[in-house]
Amino acid sequence: MAEAEARSRRTRGGGGAARRAERTAVSIETARYIERNIPNFEVLSEEALEIIETNAETILEEVGVNFVDNPAALERWRNAGADVTGERVRIPRGLARKLCATAPSRITQHARNPERSVEIGGKSLVLAPVYGPPFVRDMDGGRRYATMEDFRKFVRLGYMSKWLHHSGGTVCEPTDVPVNKRHLDMLHAHMTLSDKPFMGSVTEPSRAQDSVDMCEILFGKEFVQDNTVMTSLINVNSPMTFDDVMMGSLEVYASNNQACILSPFIVGGAMAPVSVMGTLTQVLAEVLAGIAYSQLIRPGAPMIFGAFVTSIDMNSGAPTFGTPEAAHITYGAGQLARRLGLPFRSSGSFNGSKLPDAQAAYETANSLNVGLLAGVNFMLHSCGWLEGGLVSSFEKFVMDADQLGTLHHIARGVEIDENAQAMDAIREVGPGGHYLGCAHTQANFKNAFWRSDLLDYKPFETWSEEGERDTMVLANARVKKMLGDYQQPPLDPAIAEALAAFVATRKESMPDAFS
Amino acid sequence: MAEAEARSRRTRGGGGAARRAERTAVSIETARYIERNIPNFEVLSEEALEIIETNAETILEEVGVNFVDNPAALERWRNAGADVTGERVRIPRGLARKLCATAPSRITQHARNPERSVEIGGKSLVLAPVYGPPFVRDMDGGRRYATMEDFRKFVRLGYMSKWLHHSGGTVCEPTDVPVNKRHLDMLHAHMTLSDKPFMGSVTEPSRAQDSVDMCEILFGKEFVQDNTVMTSLINVNSPMTFDDVMMGSLEVYASNNQACILSPFIVGGAMAPVSVMGTLTQVLAEVLAGIAYSQLIRPGAPMIFGAFVTSIDMNSGAPTFGTPEAAHITYGAGQLARRLGLPFRSSGSFNGSKLPDAQAAYETANSLNVGLLAGVNFMLHSCGWLEGGLVSSFEKFVMDADQLGTLHHIARGVEIDENAQAMDAIREVGPGGHYLGCAHTQANFKNAFWRSDLLDYKPFETWSEEGERDTMVLANARVKKMLGDYQQPPLDPAIAEALAAFVATRKESMPDAFS
Repeated sequence: MAEAEARSRRTRGGGGAARRAERTAVSIETARYIERNIPNFEVLSEEALEIIETNAETILEEVGVNFVDNPAALERWRNAGADVTGERVRIPRGLARKLCATAPSRITQHARNPERSVEIGGKSLVLAPVYGPPFVRDMDGGRRYATMEDFRKFVRLGYMSKWLHHSGGTVCEPTDVPVNKRHLDMLHAHMTLSDKPFMGSVTEPSRAQDSVDMCEILFGKEFVQDNTVMTSLINVNSPMTFDDVMMGSLEVYASNNQACILSPFIVGGAMAPVSVMGTLTQVLAEVLAGIAYSQLIRPGAPMIFGAFVTSIDMNSGAPTFGTPEAAHITYGAGQLARRLGLPFRSSGSFNGSKLPDAQAAYETANSLNVGLLAGVNFMLHSCGWLEGGLVSSFEKFVMDADQLGTLHHIARGVEIDENAQAMDAIREVGPGGHYLGCAHTQANFKNAFWRSDLLDYKPFETWSEEGERDTMVLANARVKKMLGDYQQPPLDPAIAEALAAFVATRKESMPDAFS
Repeated sequence: MAEAEARSRRTRGGGGAARRAERTAVSIETARYIERNIPNFEVLSEEALEIIETNAETILEEVGVNFVDNPAALERWRNAGADVTGERVRIPRGLARKLCATAPSRITQHARNPERSVEIGGKSLVLAPVYGPPFVRDMDGGRRYATMEDFRKFVRLGYMSKWLHHSGGTVCEPTDVPVNKRHLDMLHAHMTLSDKPFMGSVTEPSRAQDSVDMCEILFGKEFVQDNTVMTSLINVNSPMTFDDVMMGSLEVYASNNQACILSPFIVGGAMAPVSVMGTLTQVLAEVLAGIAYSQLIRPGAPMIFGAFVTSIDMNSGAPTFGTPEAAHITYGAGQLARRLGLPFRSSGSFNGSKLPDAQAAYETANSLNVGLLAGVNFMLHSCGWLEGGLVSSFEKFVMDADQLGTLHHIARGVEIDENAQAMDAIREVGPGGHYLGCAHTQANFKNAFWRSDLLDYKPFETWSEEGERDTMVLANARVKKMLGDYQQPPLDPAIAEALAAFVATRKESMPDAFS
C-alpha cells in the first residue's frame, strides 16, 4: 500500500524524464559523515583513567599477551624489546604506548566517489552497517540462512540510505557461496553496487590480499599504496589472544597502508571481568598490544581503537545489549582512545531481540545514543543488527538507518546567531499568539526539525483506516520501495570488466570450500 | 503463559506462608530515587547561556506576559514593581530573577511511607508515570476512553514498579467520573492504593484546596503546613500566558507550602519559535515570570523549573517526540535551571506512535536518555505515554518502567576501587581463558549488570517454541502478573475512613458536571 502510494506520488509530476530525474535524485542523496559540534560525554575521572592506564601496562608487563601460531610476530616483538616466552609476549612498561605513537590520529578513507570519502578521527562519526550475521530475517520470509542475493540487497539498501556513510563489510554471511570464495563476491558487490567506502576481508591473509588486489583495480595501484581505501575489522580473541588468521590479515593491510580496527571482543563476565574498570583495563592492554604490533609491521599504518562491548545475562548466559554497563565501558573506552590520540570504534544498533520490536528499538536507541556521545569515530553495526548479531534484519536495517538521522542532527549542536535567537519572532507573536504563520517560522521551518522518513506521524483516524500498521510493517514497505527505486551507480566499464575477470580467475584457481 | 510460568516458579518453594512472604517481598521492592554519580551533558556554551538570559529579560521587560482573568495577580505584580497594562505584566530587568532567589534549590517530597519520600533537586532524579491521557490502550481491549478502574490499575502498576519512585497524578483521565469530582477519586486512589508520593489536582483552585485538605487527613494538618507532600503540574499557556485556573491552583499550593512544577508547554514551531535558542529564551522568560509570581504568594514556596518539549512535523502538523531538537532544548533548559539554582523537570517516555512498537521505543529511549543526562530532577511521564500523550498504554507502562532500571544503573557511575579494578581476575584468567568461573566473577556477578525483568533473553529455539512473542505480548503478560500479585499497602483504618468520608461529603456537595 505504501509502495503504491509512493509510486502514484512519484508519477504525479509528469513524464518519464522527470520521473527518472526524481528517482536519480532520491537514490544518490547521502549525508556527509558527522562532524560533531557537541561535547563528548565522559564518565571517568582523571584518577580512574590513570589507574586504568597504569594497570594496563602492568598486565602487558606481568601477564602479557599471546600471539598464536605466528613465529614471525614473536620475532618482531623480540626485536622490539619484548620478553617472549613460547607464544607469550610480555611488553615492558611504556613500550606498546610508544609504538602506538606512530599511528595517525585521523584517517581519510577514500571512496570511489570522492564525495563519499570519509574522515575517521577527531570529532568525526562515520556510520557503517551491520557486520557478520549468518542469518537474515524479513516479514516475508522469516529467519533463514543468508545468501549472496540477500547480501546484494543490503548493499543496495546501504547505498540508498542517506544517513549511512559507509557500505560496510560482511553485511550478512552469504552462506550459499563457498567460504573460500565469498569474499570475492562480497567485495565485488560493494565495489559495483555502491560507491560508498567499504571494508576488506579478514578471514584469511590471502583474502586480505585479494581485497587489496581488487582495490588496486578499482582505485589504481599507486593510489592504493598512497591512500587508505579500506577499513577492515581485526578482532582480538579476548582475553589477550591474537590469532594467526586475524594477525595475518592485519599484516597484509598494515603493510599496504590500509586501515584496521583493532577490536577487543568483549562479553563482560565471559571474555572480560564483570567490572567496568577491569574490562577497560583489559581493552586498553589488548588495543595497546595490537596497535603496537601494527606499527612494527609498518610505522604509520592507520589503525582504529576498537571496543565491541556487550555484557552477559548471568541468569541465562545470553549476551545483552544496550545495557548501562555497556554504556559505561563505551564512554570510558572513548576517553582512553582520545588520550592515546587514536580514532575510536564502538557501539552500533545492538540488541538481543528476535524481532524488530520495542525491545530491539529500546536497546538500539540506548546504544546509538551512547555511541554519539562517547565520541565514536567509526560505528560499525549502526543499522540492521538483530538477535545478538545472529541476524541481519531487512526491516530493522531501514528502521535504524532512519534513526541515524537523529544522530546527525544532535551532533550539529545549537546555532546561536541572531536568526537562531528569534527575538523578532517572540516580539511578533507575543503572549497568547502562535508561531505557525510568523515570518521567522516561514523562513526557517524547512531545516528547523529533523523528520523521520519512516515513522508514523499521521492522525489516529488515518492510521487506523490505513490498517493500523506498526513500525515493522512500515519498514517492510520501505525496504521494497528502496530496492525498487535503486539504480546502480555508474562505473568505468573497463574497471567493471577487470574486476569481474579478477573474481572469475581467482574463483577458478581454487576448489570450493564450505568450512 | 508467562503468568503460568511465574506462578509455578513461585510455588516451587513450598507452603502458603512462604509463598505469601515472597509475594509481599516482590510487591514492595522500590528503588530509592536516583542520585547521579555522573556528569550532566551540556550543549550550550557560556556565551549561548548569557545570550538567552539577557534576551529572556528583554522579553519580560519589553513584551511582558499576560495574567488572564486574575486581578489579584496583577495587583501583586504592580506592588512588586512591574509595569501592568490591562492584563499585560512587563517585568523590569532583574526583578523576576531576584524574586526567584527565595525558591529552594532542593525539595523533599514526603510520602506516607517515609522510605518512599523523594528529594527533588541537586543530583537527584525522581521518576513519575504518564500524566493526562484521556484514552487507554492494551492488547485485550484496544484503544478506549479511560475509566476510574483503568486509573486504579495504573496506580497499582506504579506501586509495583520497582524503578518508579512516584505515583504521579492523572495517570489517565477517568472519563466515567464527573469532571468536578474525579480529582477526589484520583487522589483517593493514590493515597490508598500506593504509598509512594503523588501529585495534586490543578484543574480548579477548589480542587487544589481539596487536594490539600485530603493531604491534611493523610499526613496530619501540621505536617502538611511544614512539609511538602504534593508536587503538582502548573502548565504555562505558552507563549507567555498564565491563565486564572492554573494560577489559582498555584496560589493554593504555594500558600500551603506545596511544590509546583511551572512548566512552559512547548510545541516548537507552534507555541515557541522554530529555533532552539528562541525556544529556550521563551522558556526561561515564562519560568522566571511564573516562579517569581509563586514567590509573591509565599516567599520560599517550593517550585520546579519545568519544560515540556516537543516539536512539530511541519509536513503534517503532528507533534513529534524523541527528536534531536527536543534533546537540545532539554539539555539547554537543564543548564538554565541549574544556573537559577532550581530543580528541573523535563523529558519522559515521549513518543508519537499509536502502538507500543519500535517507533514508540526508539523515541522513548531517546527521550529517557536525554532526561538522565540533562540533569532532570523530576521526570513526569517516565512510563506509559503513547500516541503523543493521548493514550496511557498498559503494556508500554511496564515496558518503560523496566527500562527505567537502565537509568538507575547508568547514573551510578563507575566504581574504581580495588575490587572494581579486577587485576586479580585478569591475572587469574590470563590470555585465552574465560571469566565465567573465576573468583572475581563469582563474587561480583549478582550486582554487576543490570538485567531486564521483561525483555527476552532466551535462546532462539526456546523463544520460538514459546510462540515467538514480541515485547508487547511479553508486556501484556507482565501487566496481568503484576496486577495479580498486587497487595494494597497498609493504611491506618481511621485515616482510611476519614478519607472516604471526605470524598463522599465533597461529592454530595456538588451536582455532577461533565465538562
